[in-house]
Parts: sequence; C-alpha cells; structure tokens
Amino acid sequence: MTNMMEKIDILLEALPYIKRFSGSTFVIKYGGAAMEEEALKHEFAKDIVLLKYVGINPVVVHGGGPQIERLLTKLQIPTRFVDGLRVTDEATLEVVEMVLSGLINKRIVKDIQDNGGQAIGLSGKDGRLVMAKQVEGKDIGLVGQVVGVNALILKEISKTGYVPVIAPLGCGIDGNTYNINADTVAGAVAKALLAEKLILLTDVPGVLDEASKPISVLKTDEVRHLLNDQTIRGGMIPKVKCCMDALHGGVKKTHIIDGRVPHALLLEVFTRTGIGTQIAGEE
Amino acid sequence: MTNMMEKIDILLEALPYIKRFSGSTFVIKYGGAAMEEEALKHEFAKDIVLLKYVGINPVVVHGGGPQIERLLTKLQIPTRFVDGLRVTDEATLEVVEMVLSGLINKRIVKDIQDNGGQAIGLSGKDGRLVMAKQVEGKDIGLVGQVVGVNALILKEISKTGYVPVIAPLGCGIDGNTYNINADTVAGAVAKALLAEKLILLTDVPGVLDEASKPISVLKTDEVRHLLNDQTIRGGMIPKVKCCMDALHGGVKKTHIIDGRVPHALLLEVFTRTGIGTQIAGEE
Amino acid sequence: MTNMMEKIDILLEALPYIKRFSGSTFVIKYGGAAMEEEALKHEFAKDIVLLKYVGINPVVVHGGGPQIERLLTKLQIPTRFVDGLRVTDEATLEVVEMVLSGLINKRIVKDIQDNGGQAIGLSGKDGRLVMAKQVEGKDIGLVGQVVGVNALILKEISKTGYVPVIAPLGCGIDGNTYNINADTVAGAVAKALLAEKLILLTDVPGVLDEASKPISVLKTDEVRHLLNDQTIRGGMIPKVKCCMDALHGGVKKTHIIDGRVPHALLLEVFTRTGIGTQIAGEE
Amino acid sequence: MTNMMEKIDILLEALPYIKRFSGSTFVIKYGGAAMEEEALKHEFAKDIVLLKYVGINPVVVHGGGPQIERLLTKLQIPTRFVDGLRVTDEATLEVVEMVLSGLINKRIVKDIQDNGGQAIGLSGKDGRLVMAKQVEGKDIGLVGQVVGVNALILKEISKTGYVPVIAPLGCGIDGNTYNINADTVAGAVAKALLAEKLILLTDVPGVLDEASKPISVLKTDEVRHLLNDQTIRGGMIPKVKCCMDALHGGVKKTHIIDGRVPHALLLEVFTRTGIGTQIAGEE
Amino acid sequence: MTNMMEKIDILLEALPYIKRFSGSTFVIKYGGAAMEEEALKHEFAKDIVLLKYVGINPVVVHGGGPQIERLLTKLQIPTRFVDGLRVTDEATLEVVEMVLSGLINKRIVKDIQDNGGQAIGLSGKDGRLVMAKQVEGKDIGLVGQVVGVNALILKEISKTGYVPVIAPLGCGIDGNTYNINADTVAGAVAKALLAEKLILLTDVPGVLDEASKPISVLKTDEVRHLLNDQTIRGGMIPKVKCCMDALHGGVKKTHIIDGRVPHALLLEVFTRTGIGTQIAGEE
Amino acid sequence: MTNMMEKIDILLEALPYIKRFSGSTFVIKYGGAAMEEEALKHEFAKDIVLLKYVGINPVVVHGGGPQIERLLTKLQIPTRFVDGLRVTDEATLEVVEMVLSGLINKRIVKDIQDNGGQAIGLSGKDGRLVMAKQVEGKDIGLVGQVVGVNALILKEISKTGYVPVIAPLGCGIDGNTYNINADTVAGAVAKALLAEKLILLTDVPGVLDEASKPISVLKTDEVRHLLNDQTIRGGMIPKVKCCMDALHGGVKKTHIIDGRVPHALLLEVFTRTGIGTQIAGEE
Repeated sequence: MTNMMEKIDILLEALPYIKRFSGSTFVIKYGGAAMEEEALKHEFAKDIVLLKYVGINPVVVHGGGPQIERLLTKLQIPTRFVDGLRVTDEATLEVVEMVLSGLINKRIVKDIQDNGGQAIGLSGKDGRLVMAKQVEGKDIGLVGQVVGVNALILKEISKTGYVPVIAPLGCGIDGNTYNINADTVAGAVAKALLAEKLILLTDVPGVLDEASKPISVLKTDEVRHLLNDQTIRGGMIPKVKCCMDALHGGVKKTHIIDGRVPHALLLEVFTRTGIGTQIAGEE
Repeated sequence: MTNMMEKIDILLEALPYIKRFSGSTFVIKYGGAAMEEEALKHEFAKDIVLLKYVGINPVVVHGGGPQIERLLTKLQIPTRFVDGLRVTDEATLEVVEMVLSGLINKRIVKDIQDNGGQAIGLSGKDGRLVMAKQVEGKDIGLVGQVVGVNALILKEISKTGYVPVIAPLGCGIDGNTYNINADTVAGAVAKALLAEKLILLTDVPGVLDEASKPISVLKTDEVRHLLNDQTIRGGMIPKVKCCMDALHGGVKKTHIIDGRVPHALLLEVFTRTGIGTQIAGEE
Repeated sequence: MTNMMEKIDILLEALPYIKRFSGSTFVIKYGGAAMEEEALKHEFAKDIVLLKYVGINPVVVHGGGPQIERLLTKLQIPTRFVDGLRVTDEATLEVVEMVLSGLINKRIVKDIQDNGGQAIGLSGKDGRLVMAKQVEGKDIGLVGQVVGVNALILKEISKTGYVPVIAPLGCGIDGNTYNINADTVAGAVAKALLAEKLILLTDVPGVLDEASKPISVLKTDEVRHLLNDQTIRGGMIPKVKCCMDALHGGVKKTHIIDGRVPHALLLEVFTRTGIGTQIAGEE
Repeated sequence: MTNMMEKIDILLEALPYIKRFSGSTFVIKYGGAAMEEEALKHEFAKDIVLLKYVGINPVVVHGGGPQIERLLTKLQIPTRFVDGLRVTDEATLEVVEMVLSGLINKRIVKDIQDNGGQAIGLSGKDGRLVMAKQVEGKDIGLVGQVVGVNALILKEISKTGYVPVIAPLGCGIDGNTYNINADTVAGAVAKALLAEKLILLTDVPGVLDEASKPISVLKTDEVRHLLNDQTIRGGMIPKVKCCMDALHGGVKKTHIIDGRVPHALLLEVFTRTGIGTQIAGEE
Repeated sequence: MTNMMEKIDILLEALPYIKRFSGSTFVIKYGGAAMEEEALKHEFAKDIVLLKYVGINPVVVHGGGPQIERLLTKLQIPTRFVDGLRVTDEATLEVVEMVLSGLINKRIVKDIQDNGGQAIGLSGKDGRLVMAKQVEGKDIGLVGQVVGVNALILKEISKTGYVPVIAPLGCGIDGNTYNINADTVAGAVAKALLAEKLILLTDVPGVLDEASKPISVLKTDEVRHLLNDQTIRGGMIPKVKCCMDALHGGVKKTHIIDGRVPHALLLEVFTRTGIGTQIAGEE
Repeated sequence: MTNMMEKIDILLEALPYIKRFSGSTFVIKYGGAAMEEEALKHEFAKDIVLLKYVGINPVVVHGGGPQIERLLTKLQIPTRFVDGLRVTDEATLEVVEMVLSGLINKRIVKDIQDNGGQAIGLSGKDGRLVMAKQVEGKDIGLVGQVVGVNALILKEISKTGYVPVIAPLGCGIDGNTYNINADTVAGAVAKALLAEKLILLTDVPGVLDEASKPISVLKTDEVRHLLNDQTIRGGMIPKVKCCMDALHGGVKKTHIIDGRVPHALLLEVFTRTGIGTQIAGEE
C-alpha cells in the first residue's frame, strides 16, 4: 500500500502543472538522439501522448539530418554545408523531401499512434502550412526562410484530437519547394500559434556557463550578455536566437533541453526544476 | 534525477487509465470517515479535482448522518431508526435539510474549490433533480425512494466544467420533500447518467469473505451466492443491492471501497489491483 | 362575453410591457412579509413564473433574518447587530448558512416549481458565484462585502430555462465563508448582469416624502437631495444607496416596492403607474 | 389598486395557456369580416402579435374573395363559380394573384408590423412553398389542389421571429400557377407543420346544431354523424372536412370560430370555454 | 472530341472568375427589355441560377413600369411623371403594388425556379426590408426615398440557398407605403449588403462618350467630368449617380449593362472585357 | 460577341451537371500517364480545382509505380511482382514510402495549390486513415489489404475547403506498415465515404468489347458476363472488380477512364457521353 500511496502523491504533484497548462500549446522541435535511439523514440512518443491527454496541445516539428546523410551517400550525391545549412540543389532537395516527409514524418506519426495517441503528419507544403522564400545573402540553393505560417490548419487538427507532426519544408512564394532548418520552422510555428512553450530537444545539457555547467534559467538580457561575451557559441547561437525571436513574437517561454535524457519533455513540464535551460522574457 | 525519473514513470503508468476513462462519468457516494476527518476530506477534494482535470466527470452524492445527529441532539428532537432508515417527521426533515443542503453540501463545494476545482452544490429539489415518493410498506414518515432523475441538468453542469455535488433530498410527486438514503440517490443518479462507475465510499475494507478478508472482485452471480449463504450481512446488504441495481440499470462497474484509506478514490481508479471490492456484471 | 372581452383587453394592455422587457434580466431581492406570509409567498412564486414565461429572466436573491433569529434562539446562541449588520462568529455563521442555503433557498425553489416554473438554488459559494472579503472598518466578524460575481453561471442557468435563486453567502478570497447583506448581493448581481431592473421587495410603501407619502419616481439627483435633507433616513438609506450604486454600475432602473401588496412584482412591471418608488438615472 | 389587482389576476389566469402553448404552432385561416372591417383588422393584428410574444408561432393564410370580385368588376372580367370554386382562366388568375399576393398579403404584413410584430408575406410560389396540381373532375380552369408544402421555409421564418403570411396560390408541378381555396391551403400547411391548432375564422358563430345553436366541442365521430343527417350543410361542409382532414394528418385540434367577434383569436386560445366550435379527434 | 475539349477549355476559363467571386454578393437591378421579352427573361433566370450555383449570392431588385402603365390604362386611372418619377396617389399606389408585388415579383420567382433555382419574392414591406420616407422638395405624392435596409433578412435568405427577389416598395416611417425607384432600392440594398457588385440592366449599350460609343471602364472622377461637360445626360444621369452613391457606400464595383444582349449578366461577370460600362472607385 | 455568347452557352450547358453533383464526393484514383506527363499533370490539377469550386468534394488517391521503380534501380534493390503486386521487403517498403508519401504526394498537393486550390497530403498512416492487414494466400511480404478507413478525417478536411490527397500505404493492425494497391485504396475510401463516383484514371480507352472498341456504359450483370467469357482480361480484371466492389459497397457510379486524354476528368463529369467506361448497378 505504501508504494501505491507514493504513486498517488506523485500524480497529485503533477496536478498544478496540468491545471496551469490545460488548453495551451507546446511546439516541440524533435531531433538528435531522441529521434535516433529506439528507447528514447518510444519514450518521446509516450510523453507526447500524455501531454495530449492531460489537455495540452503538442505540435511536433522534426529534423532528420543523419537519415538524409545516409540516403545521399547511398545515392552518391555529394553534399556540403555553409554556416550550418546544407547546400541544396534539386537532387538533394528530392532526397531531403523523401526522407523528411516520406519516412521520418510518418514514423513519428506511427510512434505516437502506437503509443495510444492520434497524429497527422504534414509537410510545410500541405495547405501551404509554411510559406517560404530563399535565404538571403548566401548562395546555398533551395534553402528557405519562413515568411508565413497557416496557423488555422494546425488549430483545426489539434482541436479534433490529433497531434500535428511537421516536416520542415516550405512552399516557396516563387513556386519552389524549400528545405528549411527545423528549429526555424518550430520557432515560426510557435509564434503563429502564440504558443505557451517552444521546446528545442538537443544533444547537449542546455546553455552552458563559462564553467561549462548548464544554466537553469535565463532572462533575455542575460542571453544577450552571454552572446556578447561569447560564452554562448557555435551551434548554440542559432538555437538561443531562435528562442529570443520566439519570445519576441509572443511565445511565453522557451526551453533548450537535453533530448538524451529519457522523458526529457515530461521532466521539463512536470517538475519544478526542469532540465536544460529555460529562456523567458524580462517580466 | 533518478527520483524524478521514477516520478515520470508513475505518471506514465497512469496514462492507460486516463485514456480509458477520458470523458466518462463516475458517480461517487461520499460519506463516513472520508467526510469527517480533516486530512481525508482534503485528500478527497484533491482526488476529485484530479479526476476532473484528466477528463473524467465526477458527480458527488453525499450523506451526513453524524452531523444531523448532533443538531437533532442540540435541538432536543428525539430520533429513531427502522431498518437503518431514520424515521422523519416535519421537524426532523427541517434539520436534515438544513444540515445536508445548507452545511455539508456547501462545505464539499468549498473543499473542491479550495483545492483548485469548480463545483456546484444542488439538493434533489433543485431543478427537480431527484423526483421521489414515500417508501412503501414502512411507517417512517418523510423517507423517500427515487422515482426519477433529471440527468440533463447534471450533464449541463459537468459539460461547463463544474463538479455537481448532490444532497440526497427528493422532490415528492405529492408536493412533499423527502429524506432519501444517499447510496440510493447515488445509484439512481449513476443509472440515469449511464455512468462508467458507481463508487461507494464506506468505513470498511470492502465486501468480506467467510474468513472476514476483503474480496477484490465479484461477479453478480457470486454476489447472489454470498447473499444467500449470508456471508454478506448487516449494513453491507443494502450496499451490494444498490450496486447490483446500478449494474442492472446500465452502470458499467461498481465499487465498494474503504474511505478511511487516504486517496482511496485515486487508488481505485489508477492502480491495477484497486482497493476494496469491485462488483461487475457477468460478462 | 363582455367579461371575457375585458380580460382580453387587459392581456393586450400587457403586450407593450412584454415586448419592452422580452429577453431582459430582472434581479429581485426577495424578503420581508412577501417571504413570510403563505398567500404572499404563493403569489410571488406565480409572478416569477409569469415573468419567465413572457420572456423575462428573473434572478432571485433572498434574505432570511427572522428564520435565522428563531434558530439562534432555539440553539441559545446570543446575537447582536452593529449598523444593521449581524455580528457573525463561527457558530452564528453555521446557523446563517443552514437556514439560508439549506432551508429558505430550497423552499423558494420548491415554491417556484410548485407554481409551474423551474428553479435552481445556489449559495454564493457555488461556482464561486459571489466572491467576498470582510467588511472594512467594523469589528463584526464574518460579515462580507462583494468583490466579484460569476455572471457566466447565472446566464447559463437562465438560458436553459431555470430561475436562479441565490442565498447571500460569499466565498472569501481568504478562504472564509461570509454572511452578506441580501440587498448588497442583489445589487452586485444586477450590476454583473447589466440587469434591466433591480427590484427590492420591502415592507414599506416605498421612499417617503416629507409628508410621509410614497414618491412614485425619483431621479438620482433628487435622491441625493433627499438624503442630504434627511427626508430619507434609517433603514431606507442603505436601500437607496444600493439602488444608486446599481444605477451607477449600469443597471437601467431600480425599484423599491411594497412586498406586502399581493403581486407587487407584476403590478410594478405591467402597469403604468407601478407601485412603490422607481429610481432611475438622470437621462 | 383593486382594479389593478384584478388586471393582474387576469394576466395570471392566462399563464396556464401560455405554458401549454409555448413553442407550438397555430395555423390561422384569416378571412371574412375580420379581414374587411377596420376595427377587426386592427384587433386581429394585435392578437397575432400577442401570440408571437408569449411564445406561440402563428402562421397566417388569408383569402380575399370580395377584393378580387371588385377588381374583376372594374376590369369587366366576367366570373362564375362551380361548387363554390371560382372558374379561373388566365385573365382571372392574373387578377387573383395581383390582389392576393400584391395587395392583401402585404396589407396584413403591414398591419402586423404596425401593431408591433414582424412579418413576411409569401405566396405559395415563393420557395415552392405550396406545390399544386389542377383539381380533378371539374372543368374550372386554373384551380388547384395541394400536393406538397415546403415546411422548412416556414420553420426558418418562424424561428427568426417573423410571422409568415401566406397568399393561397400554388406552384403547379405542370408549370402553371394555381388559385387554391385558402381553407385548403391552411389545412395543408397545418398538417405539414404538425400544428397544435388549425383555426378557421368565419362569419358564422361556429358549427350549428339542429336548433341552429353553435356547438362548443365536437369529436370527429360526432361530426361524421352531423354530416350524415345533414345538420352540417352548405358552406360549412368543406370547412369541417378541412378540419377532419387536418386532424387525420396530425394536427392536434381544429377550431371554426366567429371572426366577427373582436379578438376572437385570443378568446379562443386564452379562455376556458372558447368561442365557436372546437373539433378534435376521439381521444 | 475536339469540340468537347474546347468546351472544357471554356469552363476552365471561367474558373478564375468563379474563384474571385465565390461567396460574394451581386445586387442586380432587373428591368427593361430583359424583363419583357420571353427569350431574354428565360436567359436572365438561367444566368441567376448559374451565379448561385457557382457560389455567388445574387439579389434581384426589379422594376415594372410598362406593366403598371397597362393596368392603369385598363382601369382608366390617369398618370403623369415629374422628373422621371410617377406622381403616385392612393389609387395609383394600389395598382403599383398589385403589379409589382403581386404579378412581376412572383413571375420572376417562378422563372428562377423553373430554371432550376430557388427564390423568395419580397416587397420592401416584408420584414420592414426597405424603410422609406417621402421624397423631399417635390409634390409627387407617395413616392419614397430609402432611409434604411434590413440586411439581416436578405443574408438569412441567401444563406439558406434562396435568391431574394425584391419589389421596390417601401415601408414608411410615417405608416404609409411608398413607391420607390427600383435603381434607388438596388443601390441601397447593395450598400447595406456591402455588395461586391451592383449591376443595373438597361436598354442602352452603357455610358456613351461624345462620339456616342459605349465606354468600357470609368473611374469616379472621370464620371464627374462627363457629368460636368454633359456627355452623360438624360436618363443616364440618375443611373450613374446611383452607381457613384453605391461606390461611396462601400460597394466594390458597379456596372451599367445592356440587358438586350442575351446573357448580359454572365458576359459581364465571366469574360475579360465585359459588356456595358463598369464604374469603379479611384483605387 | 458571337464567340463570347458561345462560351456562355457552354457554361450554361454545365449547369445541370453542377447542380446534380453539388455537395457530392468523387474519389479519383490518379496514376499512369496523367501523373507522368507535364501537360496532363497540370490539366489534372486544374480539373480538381474546378470540381472543388463548383461544389464537388474530390478526394485523390495516387499510385507511383514508375517513380518507385527508378529509385529502386538507383539503390540497386532488386524487385519482382507476383500477380501484379510488388513483393515488398523492409528495404523496398522504405523506398515505396519515401517515393509515395514524400515525393509524389507532396507534388500533387503542390500542383493543386499552384493551380488555385488548397490540398492536404496524407498517407494511410496519418490518423490511421487506412487500416490494413497482410494480403492472404500469397507470400509477397509487406503488401496489405484494407480492413478499415477513417472517413471522419477525410470529411473534416473536405469540409474546411481542402482536397485530401492520399498515398496508398496502410497502418497494419499488427503494427507493420503496408504497401497497398492504389485502386484498392481508392475503392475502399469511396465506399467509406459513400461517394457519388469512383473514377479510375488508366492508360487505356476503357473496358473493351470483343472488337477491342471501348464500351461506354456497363451494368454489373453485363460485367459479370464479360468476365466469364474473358472479354475482360489481364490488368483490366482487378480494375472492374474494384468497381464492382465499390458499387456493392454503396458507391453510386464508377468510371474507368483514359487519363491520356487531356481533362479526362471534366469530360467525364460535364459532358453527356463521357469518355471511357461507366459501370453502374442494375437499377
């Protein structure tokens, strides 16, 4: 009995979080180890289903770099990166689209459904969900930046009980299809939905301080300071900028968390300390 | 971290129960120790709020014997019982109504609200929620039996996010007000709502076998057998009959549980074994 | 036939009033003789039902002084008043709540239903209908003033065809329950609902002029004048202040009428002259 | 005061009728003196408005014989009747349609509106409200019988607060327009709407017995008897047949009343004895 | 096959127009030859039905001068015009109303229905659709100008799939019925509905330039210029003023087209050049 | 002008078809030349948009054989067919899914959107749209047959103005993903939606008679006859069986048409003779 009682206490401990987030939207960038390792994939899907069942509307945006890499290799299509963005010609885009929209997107849908949820996978081309144009100032081909998000369609899908799962491709206003960075799409979707939270799953423990220890909570002005003094550097720079942009666009809180920790998502949402780094506005 | 992970595992353990019961109605007869002791009262209210937040529609029907007893004594109104039912004249009924509808009903509403929920307290007279007539074959005054329940009003209240809390008084088709047994009202309400569960909180560990040990699960034909050979006896007889009647009327499962156990309600709903006795139909 | 024709003419005389008030809300403070004498009670209930049937949404707020007095006496609980408000300790509050929410509230519900209507009785604690805090500047215990009204719940109830009947208790923001003056609650409810009319049933013929004759119509500036020169005095002062406050808060018209006159309510609503005193804004 | 009190009593006397008929539909055939004399026209419009305001849905079907007669004469178009039906050629039909749809229909609409109601005038051709075919077995030209009624459109109009006023023309399944007897149209409309009442306003005191005194209530088998022994004869025959047919088609009660009596409609609905003759089914 | 393929190409050519106008409202003043000649009448009805089926909401306002003339002559009622408006006494108004509401209105309804659509004919008196007052500064009797339009009723009718057909009579705020110019009513209705288009069918090829050739497109300032130099003159003046007024009141585009051309309506809507003259605002 | 008039006549010729099919659902199996050749692809998309705009709900199910073939070849994955079905191991399925869901599905979505429509691409895995199990009696790996269709999700999407485009993959009840024949999925979807029409686009002129000439219309019993005497043979057998099954399941009409003909879809829907073969039930 004692054991059962402890379980109940833990359930009740979650109640204030459930109440606080009931009816709100979380946009989650899904990628890295959490999307590669079998056990973590399974746990991620379970977490999404639990969020949905306690009244939260999760929206998943996924990446897919390693899988794209593998297929490019098999097809002997050479590839290279400029500023962390893959130079994308027609042949590459075809591979990107096949892997993201055809394979990974539907696998995530299936994972969520196999764990008891309902999901619908979309690419940014469906219903012109993500309108895009070519990134400026770089000669990297069909790589896009977001110019608009069709929020209505995501709300419809959430309302009817499904979790939207989005492959980060964009519908060009020039008629082209664009390959877009998944963090960027997640941020744009979070802004369009005025989400409660934007959560980026990464393969690091969060934003690190000078002593390389993860920082638990950051305000936007602290972030600016850490960027200036180059404490934040490398691949973390676009991630915190994505968070800053989302906060500026009306998202309430943003989180950079460690997707290698099992159930990272629930730990962040349902425990006081959370894991990884939370970045919020001044007030 | 390990500790937090365990907590998350426990949350996830609850998921199948949340999914199974999402949108369904539980009618709970609230009484005994769970309604008398401060700690238990607080825990009961928390349990109701959690049920509501994970998508279940709890409906509470309460008793109030001891408090009625105390006021009758203070006012020097003599009282007596026939077959477990209080003989009720006009003066007694006035006390019953004041204590049930005026005091206890509103205290339960307040407890639920103080623990984060929303509740509305009704007597069976409000909106002719419980239509009644005098019990037959006994000369015990204004004691009633249920002849009809206004299910619509309860559904409206549940739909708008409130927990209905019901004082067991009835609106006589002859114009009188009737004092009705709370188990009986709970059973009738459960039938009218075609509830998923009818849960009776008692001050015993459940239905006992010949060795006086609580029985975990009973089918209706086993109950009939135990009644015949008088293993079930005394105050437990009307309770199991109430359950049998509810099952016959379309309620899916019924439970006689030990309200003295903290969080008895959640333990019953969210753990595999449950506590107390579950009585279900044959199939 | 002539007689029947006269009846029809009278029905048609009511038509402009029915049209004018169709769909509007009347908040009625019910108390005094109209709530004590059998014949008047019956007539009041009939009036409420007629109002409801011709498309008006009546909301009843009731008092209960004499009945509280009687139970306090029986239970030998001493009581005293400061500035017309009953000093309320825990024991007194329990009696107040039992009598108001348990007895009187449900009797009014029953009266309305016995005369062909449908009603739901609520205390200010149900659904946190009336939020309150302790009255300031007086040491009179658990006596409250209104800080907020949950108008939504009253609109839902009215919309589904029921008459809401409200016992004047408040849900303290400090967790306490408060005893509140019924006129005050009626005024606050009328403001929250932006009622067409606030009608206070009293045991006097209305606001009296210097010659002690009832005044038929008053504008707010005339009221201020009569308060200044003390033509309005004693128990009438809080009543006219309650009306002034309601008008200031958006209520269209207020009425202080003589509840001792049979069908006072209908006379006020459906006849040109009305009975008692009508207080309206300047324009 | 006494006088006012009497008025209130009369209002309350109407309450049971208001409750009984709230939400139900009355189809009223309007014609004869009630449509010719100024005072009666005004009173009829007032009655319709009152019915609408107390929650009844009146539907008016009107005739227009005398006005048609006058225009035919002015235009020197000869006219004759066969079995009470006007032989209708193209020229006659044009006059019928101008007078009924153009003049009388809009005047009734205006009368209702001038007395505080809202109305919409339709001919049986609008929205194919009344589908018709040529009456069989008689060589009388464009005189039709009803083959179908578009009940939906009438329900829409009633629901949005308007009183439908119908000119008795029909939309032929052969493409012609048909002149139809107004009683017949009223009966067909009442059946299509499953009306509570079909009320025929006439210029006689009702169905007369052998002593030429009006009969208050008749059952359908009594009507059959009176038809057989020719107590009912002449122009009353099609009227009672119309009622019988309506009752057979699901209308609850039918009334043949004296439109020359002021407020005949309200007298029939709101007084115990009514005026004229009520014909109802056996049970 | 070749022929069929051409047909399909033409269908597809219409697609951009269908898309552009889907869900918008066109108010069409119907009169002149298009309302007189059998073939044109039939084609007009077909056009209206097609517009409705491809998602446009047409609203028809009709005139009826020649038919009124004929009946006035038959009835030997003398008639005269002042500034193009018929001096209207009571006798004349009766004829006007009979012809417009009774005859023409219902014939247009019938034509639309015979060609596969659904229509409801209304006069401006129905539901107080067109509120009017006497035209000022002229002594011409019951001739009115519009003071208000009940747009709600037209939207209801359009929404349920019917085409509203309106006879240009007005409901006087002084209780009179008024005869109103049909162009004026069409303009007022178009403004009240914030229509996409106001289309006036005439018996001329459009607005003519100095060389008497029809002008295809005009901006409002060009119109002002053409009025000033009297290029626009005679009966065309009120028509262009009506268009200017509609544009000022929020109508997007106005058209003066040649109703003598078969399918003038569809030609205007579905072809690039259109027929007749389009008048639009500056920008 | 003459030319424009002819265009209008052709538009009006389409009206009866628009009216007949307004609000109904067409399920279209898209494949073959119509999906390979640039001009035909563009025309197909235009046809779908026109259907949607005139009130029809098209649902597209597509194949993708040749594109799958090409990628398998590039990746050097050997493939073979049994009874016209591709033997599908894990590696093959991955290719199938990438090509169908990732590439072709989104290209069709984009084509429809580039031609003015709105579309959402789904695989049978999204929202468990197509539930499947392994085909019986053949050892061909992950090739499935349909066991259920989630019609609700398709209706939601159609209702909000989007065209659903479906890749023929199935969600196995055993947890596997299945490759399913596109004709089969189209048939199952048509049955689940009780579609008005199931249209299969092929690369042949329709069902051929003994003289190898296409048959315009076939009844189900004629089909049975032609199957028996082997007039229908080869790849046409599963297609007509698919149609027969759809008709049996409640689909009104089925069509096997020649996708190589430009605008085959519109020709079939909007012309009297149609193209290809129509198969309908007996009556």
